[in-house]
Amino acid sequence: MIRVAVVGLGQIGGSLAAALTRRRLARVVGVTRRAETARRARRMGILAEAGTALEAAAAADVTVLATPVRTLLRQIPGVASRARPGSLLTDVGSTKAEVCAAFRRARTEASVVAGHPMAGNERAGLDGCDPDLFEGRPWVLIAAPRTPRAARDRLERLVRGVGSRPVWMSDPIEHDLRVARISHVPYLLAYALARQPRDTLRVCGNSFRDATRVALSDVEMVLDFLLTNRGPVRRAALEMRGRFDELLRLLARGDERGLRARLREARSRRAGAPGGPG
Amino acid sequence: MIRVAVVGLGQIGGSLAAALTRRRLARVVGVTRRAETARRARRMGILAEAGTALEAAAAADVTVLATPVRTLLRQIPGVASRARPGSLLTDVGSTKAEVCAAFRRARTEASVVAGHPMAGNERAGLDGCDPDLFEGRPWVLIAAPRTPRAARDRLERLVRGVGSRPVWMSDPIEHDLRVARISHVPYLLAYALARQPRDTLRVCGNSFRDATRVALSDVEMVLDFLLTNRGPVRRAALEMRGRFDELLRLLARGDERGLRARLREARSRRAGAPGGPG
Repeated sequence: MIRVAVVGLGQIGGSLAAALTRRRLARVVGVTRRAETARRARRMGILAEAGTALEAAAAADVTVLATPVRTLLRQIPGVASRARPGSLLTDVGSTKAEVCAAFRRARTEASVVAGHPMAGNERAGLDGCDPDLFEGRPWVLIAAPRTPRAARDRLERLVRGVGSRPVWMSDPIEHDLRVARISHVPYLLAYALARQPRDTLRVCGNSFRDATRVALSDVEMVLDFLLTNRGPVRRAALEMRGRFDELLRLLARGDERGLRARLREARSRRAGAPGGPG
Repeated sequence: MIRVAVVGLGQIGGSLAAALTRRRLARVVGVTRRAETARRARRMGILAEAGTALEAAAAADVTVLATPVRTLLRQIPGVASRARPGSLLTDVGSTKAEVCAAFRRARTEASVVAGHPMAGNERAGLDGCDPDLFEGRPWVLIAAPRTPRAARDRLERLVRGVGSRPVWMSDPIEHDLRVARISHVPYLLAYALARQPRDTLRVCGNSFRDATRVALSDVEMVLDFLLTNRGPVRRAALEMRGRFDELLRLLARGDERGLRARLREARSRRAGAPGGPG
């Protein structure tokens, strides 16, 4: 069995450790800053070994950096320089331009593939850990220019092994824009929606609860991806505002035909999104 | 057992008929335009009788108008004038100012309470019918000025009987503004969000799916509530845009402290919304 080091046992790192361990895909070494988290993860049976020192990563066949983006940017040089020759180094950070730049600058004898599983929910840390979290979800992979085929195949096997659907991309900036559109702007909208007068909240139904669920997420994690993705988020937010304003203009004019056409188009886009209806 | 006429067997009317029938709270007469819908509802066992003529409503103790808002505005005068003296007339329309005005103008010997259950999802018609749809959901009730206490109590018992939580309000305009904030603006945002490039949709995760679920709703129903609530939707949309723009400005400046404060405040509002976390 290959040896996988998972650095950071938040919801994504913990779920990955659980999925790899439960499905007997790897011997998982968990690395975390706090000894208590390491002990708890051991008790949960989601990893084989746990430690608080990054050195553990040096002995792994695959090292997965699963700390918040701004933390992992600081960890990359040290982990990369100590990684075993021929081993594979990857991450699960939500933004990729800064991460890929840090990987490019790092000295390493490992093969590097940046990654981003489009999974997770509002439950933070080991409490939100779920071995089936990645089931059916896309996992974006961006290989560094000289990454050998064998390394890419190895990571793809692990990603498929935990139930995810690999989506290879070449441009981290394109990734960040897509993610800004599909995830970071929805987060901002959820926060803006959730700040309602308390009287108004008394009558909230399912549509409001669905639309604002991500506002329950860990605020520090959200700050992390927003602040490492400012340009793309701004661009995606302006696109969003343009579409919202167009709907408002049609409604103000009472243009039922125009509104119907836009609503139908949006409905059919949403119905065609991967993952099926609902 | 009291006799309840439900006019319109869409998701809300059908679910109400099912809830009242299954819980043995009333003998339900379903009224629908299409004979096929009436037959299907009978086969589903969610009502005692079905017909296509509004006359059926005249014999009921309680008549519930559950057609789309613009249809029910047209039905109010006829149904109200034929309702039995001492019977109760109510509706489940999503906007209330125009409905309450139509009730005020109508000649009737029935007691009138306008209503709006904050329930439902993107599944339209009898396919989306669910006897537990109202469980734990708020149901806004607005009594006409001279409605006797006994009539209000009777409706409140039915509402509680199907598992809902009555929320009495006095001002239909205040209702429409709250609903614009909590429901209609979220719908518009969902449509604006869903109109993404197809490439971008390939990487969509849960946050996007939750945020855009209502864009799968029946477009005609949505047009109905948007077009009967233009003023409040516009006001709520401007409030929303103000909060969204504030978040964007803080992000553009890299103001981590300011952003954290707004995100935390929104998170705590959402966590305190009725219905529990998640």
